[in-house]
Amino acid sequence: MPPRIVEVRQAVLKKNDLVARRLRRAFADAGVCVVSLVSSPGAGKTALLGETLRRLTPTRRVAALVGDLATDHDAVRLRASGAPVRQITTGTVCHLDAEMVERAAAGWDLGSLEFLFIENVGNLVCPSSYDLGEDLRVVLLSVTEGEDKPEKYPTIFATSDLAVITKMDLAAAAGYDDALARRSLADARPDLEVLRVSVRSGLGMADWFDRLNAARAEKRARIEV
Amino acid sequence: MPPRIVEVRQAVLKKNDLVARRLRRAFADAGVCVVSLVSSPGAGKTALLGETLRRLTPTRRVAALVGDLATDHDAVRLRASGAPVRQITTGTVCHLDAEMVERAAAGWDLGSLEFLFIENVGNLVCPSSYDLGEDLRVVLLSVTEGEDKPEKYPTIFATSDLAVITKMDLAAAAGYDDALARRSLADARPDLEVLRVSVRSGLGMADWFDRLNAARAEKRARIEV
Repeated sequence: MPPRIVEVRQAVLKKNDLVARRLRRAFADAGVCVVSLVSSPGAGKTALLGETLRRLTPTRRVAALVGDLATDHDAVRLRASGAPVRQITTGTVCHLDAEMVERAAAGWDLGSLEFLFIENVGNLVCPSSYDLGEDLRVVLLSVTEGEDKPEKYPTIFATSDLAVITKMDLAAAAGYDDALARRSLADARPDLEVLRVSVRSGLGMADWFDRLNAARAEKRARIEV
Repeated sequence: MPPRIVEVRQAVLKKNDLVARRLRRAFADAGVCVVSLVSSPGAGKTALLGETLRRLTPTRRVAALVGDLATDHDAVRLRASGAPVRQITTGTVCHLDAEMVERAAAGWDLGSLEFLFIENVGNLVCPSSYDLGEDLRVVLLSVTEGEDKPEKYPTIFATSDLAVITKMDLAAAAGYDDALARRSLADARPDLEVLRVSVRSGLGMADWFDRLNAARAEKRARIEV
């Protein structure tokens, strides 16, 4: 990267970290568990989030922010769950930053929420450096993408807390090799937690909800200490 | 985007355009047809390029440059075709730029080549603003990614000459809707050419090679005028 861009980007990152710290404090005060989703375009973030909202809304207070360069398709699609959803359209910007999240969440009573989901722009590179104040960063990898993505895009996997392998119903048709994927994930981050799901078949979804509930319990325990 | 980043990025883009113009002149002088491939991570750039090199090398003089953040997997995989292949590893940079291409191609006798392929980093956002001096920019969209990607990532589709829909062998399993995809592609660029291929089954590959040969013929006609 040209040296001047590196310099300016570092200043921007510092500013992002300040806003992210403020957001994290606000989320902690409100007691809301914040989960961000990041992946390639089309790895299934919106499908997983849609099913998550649909299944949680009957018993949990949840909301979502969704990022895209253009269109409000995702927000419209996700509002079918009944949960409040706001679209962040970034124009030409390739990632969400903490300020966009703060602005988009303004006016929501965070204290009334148990979960807030943040779906990033589809991009395995740029979102990795932007802290959004989340408790759990989830990176998705679909079985059709190739098992070596974690090695090729190491930063986003190394900075995530949980990897979710998606579209498991297509695993056989795509010739997906789970051992290869596991090796590649461990290469990027040896202690990275891994779940396997198919939104379509329902496979692994119970583990996903267990993991979300555990994240919320951990957060409450941290706050109460 | 913060105003200072926009400002610095514009200066960088201007510089990229200067280098891209120099590259385009060098490619024209050499008479080599340059084709770049861009897509989401895992849409099948390397699979398509591998098959393309494998089928062209017996009769055509071809070479390739492949970009990734990390690893030289793609270059190693592609060299099996017998074609000269160089890996560009970008570190944390989310796209190739003209200077990286110029540096990587240095020392190659371009005049001895008929085709040079450039595989970009997997990213539907950032590569769109960087001219690489190519004759044909090809954007890939796999049937498993969701038909609305062109609307969500409009710039990369609007700046491409040809869209190739990949993994057609998975279309039925993925529930791919071709009419939806066509509508979304036309939305991003009404006159965008579209091909459908499956490297695995061979579907559409003849059209792909026809299109490559046409691009080379067009270029030669332009040079000779």
